Amino acid sequence: MKDMIDIQQFPASHLPARILMGPGPSMVDPRVYQAMAAPLVGHLDPEFVRLMDRTQELLRYAFRTENKLAIPISGTGSASMEASIANTVEPGMPILICINGYFGERLAEMARRYGGDVTVINRPWGEVFTSKEVEEALKAKPAKVVGIVHAETSTGAEQPLAEIAKIVHNHGAILIVDAVTSLTGVPLKIDELGVDICYSGTQKCISAPPGLGPITFNERALEHMRRRTKPVASWYLDLSLVQAYWGPNRSYHHTAPITMNYALYEALRIVAEEGIENRWARHRANSEMFWEGLEDLNLKCLIPRENRLTSLTTIVIPEGVDDAAVRKALLDDYNIEISGGLGVLKGKIWRVGLMGYSSRKENILLLLAALNKLIYK
Amino acid sequence: MKDMIDIQQFPASHLPARILMGPGPSMVDPRVYQAMAAPLVGHLDPEFVRLMDRTQELLRYAFRTENKLAIPISGTGSASMEASIANTVEPGMPILICINGYFGERLAEMARRYGGDVTVINRPWGEVFTSKEVEEALKAKPAKVVGIVHAETSTGAEQPLAEIAKIVHNHGAILIVDAVTSLTGVPLKIDELGVDICYSGTQKCISAPPGLGPITFNERALEHMRRRTKPVASWYLDLSLVQAYWGPNRSYHHTAPITMNYALYEALRIVAEEGIENRWARHRANSEMFWEGLEDLNLKCLIPRENRLTSLTTIVIPEGVDDAAVRKALLDDYNIEISGGLGVLKGKIWRVGLMGYSSRKENILLLLAALNKLIYK
Repeated sequence: MKDMIDIQQFPASHLPARILMGPGPSMVDPRVYQAMAAPLVGHLDPEFVRLMDRTQELLRYAFRTENKLAIPISGTGSASMEASIANTVEPGMPILICINGYFGERLAEMARRYGGDVTVINRPWGEVFTSKEVEEALKAKPAKVVGIVHAETSTGAEQPLAEIAKIVHNHGAILIVDAVTSLTGVPLKIDELGVDICYSGTQKCISAPPGLGPITFNERALEHMRRRTKPVASWYLDLSLVQAYWGPNRSYHHTAPITMNYALYEALRIVAEEGIENRWARHRANSEMFWEGLEDLNLKCLIPRENRLTSLTTIVIPEGVDDAAVRKALLDDYNIEISGGLGVLKGKIWRVGLMGYSSRKENILLLLAALNKLIYK
Repeated sequence: MKDMIDIQQFPASHLPARILMGPGPSMVDPRVYQAMAAPLVGHLDPEFVRLMDRTQELLRYAFRTENKLAIPISGTGSASMEASIANTVEPGMPILICINGYFGERLAEMARRYGGDVTVINRPWGEVFTSKEVEEALKAKPAKVVGIVHAETSTGAEQPLAEIAKIVHNHGAILIVDAVTSLTGVPLKIDELGVDICYSGTQKCISAPPGLGPITFNERALEHMRRRTKPVASWYLDLSLVQAYWGPNRSYHHTAPITMNYALYEALRIVAEEGIENRWARHRANSEMFWEGLEDLNLKCLIPRENRLTSLTTIVIPEGVDDAAVRKALLDDYNIEISGGLGVLKGKIWRVGLMGYSSRKENILLLLAALNKLIYK
C-alpha cells in the first residue's frame, strides 16, 4: 500500500472537447456549466428548497403532467428505472414486460430481482408492439404492472403508447414507460396518454450531465404503491421516503446531489424558454435533415420512418465497413462520439443521438461530412 | 396543465455563498468547481476511462487499502451504504448491526429490507461499543455480517474498530464500516484494521459535492458476495455488474455521472497533494482549536474527548437557548450553516462539521464569534 503517492502520476484532467452524438450523454449548454459553478448550499437550505420546488414544477411541464409526484431520483436513468420497478413490484406479483431491445430486457431483469412473477412478450429488436399484442398477453395472463419502452435507446424505435395505455387500464394494471431517450425531445404527453409512471435521465434530451433520474407517478400509481404489504427492498429508492423529502415536510432522507440539481434546474429552464413543442419540432427538423443527408450518402436507417425516433437514429453499417475503425477515426480525428450497437445489434448499427444541445445543424453537417470521408474516400 | 410556462416564475438561481459547517455537504475547493466546468465526454470515452482508473487508485490511497475494488457508487453516501448491505445480505441471513445513532438504525433498516435476520445491539446515542459487547452478541447469536458506524454523523462519536474487526473475523463474519463522515478526515486504515467493506460519501471530508459514494470491498467480502445463491435485489447497486464497468472489461452498466467523477478526481488529487496523514492532522488541530474556543464560551461537547470525532463536533445546547433561532440567525445574518440534532438529540445539540475544505481556522474563529454574539450578547 502506498503511504505516499506520486502526485505526478495523477495530473489534472485535460478533457477533450468532444462533439457528443452518441446515445447519451449529450452536450450541455454553457449556461448549465455556469449554473454548476454556483457554490454549494446545504440540502435543507431555504434557497435549495426553493430550487427543489421550482424544479418539480418544471419537471411537470417537461412530462406534460399535473402529477403531484415529479422529482429527480438521486442516481442516473437506470436508478429511476429501478425506482419505478422497486416501488411497484412485490414478490409474486404478476408483471408484464414488453421487450424489443436492451432496455426492455433490463426492465424485465429488474422486475425479476424484485420478486415479480414476470411474463415477457418479445418483438425483434427494432420493431414495436401493437396494442393487440399487449391485449392478448394480458388476456392470457393478467398482470398488475406493465412495463414498456417509449424510446428504445438500443434500436432507435419509438413505441406508440396511446392505445396500449387504455388496454393496460382496462385490465386494471398500471403502465410504466421508459422515456430516457425521449423526454423533452420526442412528443410525449403523460397525462393525455394516461401513462401512470414515467422515468427518464438528465443526460439525453434534457441536456444536463448524467446523475439524476426524473420520475413521475400519477395518483393511480401512488395508490398501487400504498397498497404494498411489504416495504420496498431498496431504501434509497423507496419513493414513500424520497417524496417526504421533496414534499412540504422536507423530512431528511439522503443528501441530494446539490450541484446536479443546479444543473437540472438550469437545463429545465432552457427547455421552458424554448417551449416544449418547439423543442420537439427542433428535434424532428434536425433529424429529418440528418436522414436526408444519410440518404444522400446511401446509408440506410434501421428503423422505418414511421417509428423512427427523432432523438436517436440508428444507421445500418454498410457491408465491408469496419464498425470500430470508423468510430475510432471519428473520435480521434474529429472528436465526434457516436456509438455502436448493443446486444444482437453489436457490429450491425451505429447509434447517433441528436438530443438537446447536441441537436444542432452544425453537428449534423460535420458528422455527414466525416462519415462521407471515412466510408467513401 | 400548463401548455405555456411563465419563465419569469423560474429565475436563474442566485445561490448565497454559504459557509458550510454542518454535517455535510462541506465546502468545496475552487479547483473542484473548475474541474466540473470541463466539457462532458462519453462514459466509455478513453479519456474518461483513464480518469476512472486514476480515481480508483486515489480511492485506494484514501481508504489506505490495496483492495482491487475501490470505486464510487453512482449515488450519494446512502447509496453506498445500501450497496454494502444489498450485496452482502441474503434473505434469512443472520446479521448483527450495532446501533448508537441514526445511521446505525439506517443500516439495520436496510438489512431488514434485504431480508436479513437482523439482530441489533444498542448503546445510548453518543456512546460507543466495546469489543466485548460485540463479542457477546456474536456468541449469543452468530452472524455472517456485522455492521457498525465509524463516525456517527448524528452524535459525533468515533467508534474504535481494531479489536472489533478481529472479533468479527474470529466469528467467521465480515465487517461493514460506515465512514461517511470520517474518510480522509479522521485516521482510518482499512487494511491495517481488517475492515472488509467500507463506504463513504463525497460531500464530507473529501469535499466534493454530494452525488457519489466511494466504496471498497476486500477479497473476503468479494468471496462472501460470490457465494450468494440469489442475485442482489437492486440491479443498480449490484457490485458484480458495477465492477464489470469499472474493471478492465468496461462492460456497459449505467451511464456514470461524468461531471461528478471529474469533481471526485480533483478532490482526491487535493487529498493526495496534502497527504492523508497531514490531512488527518489538520482536521485534529483545527477541531482542537474549535474545542478550546467552545470551552472559553462555556459550551459543552456531547462526546467525551477520547471518542470525539475530529471531523464533526456536537455541542450541547445550553439551557434556555433557542436552537432554531440561533441556527436561523447564523444562516440569515452570517451565512453560516450548522445543523441541529436528529432523532432523540433533536433540540438538544448542534452539529458542527469541520470537514475537508470547511476545516479552516477562519471558519472556526467566525463561528465562535457568531455563537458568542447570539448566545451571550
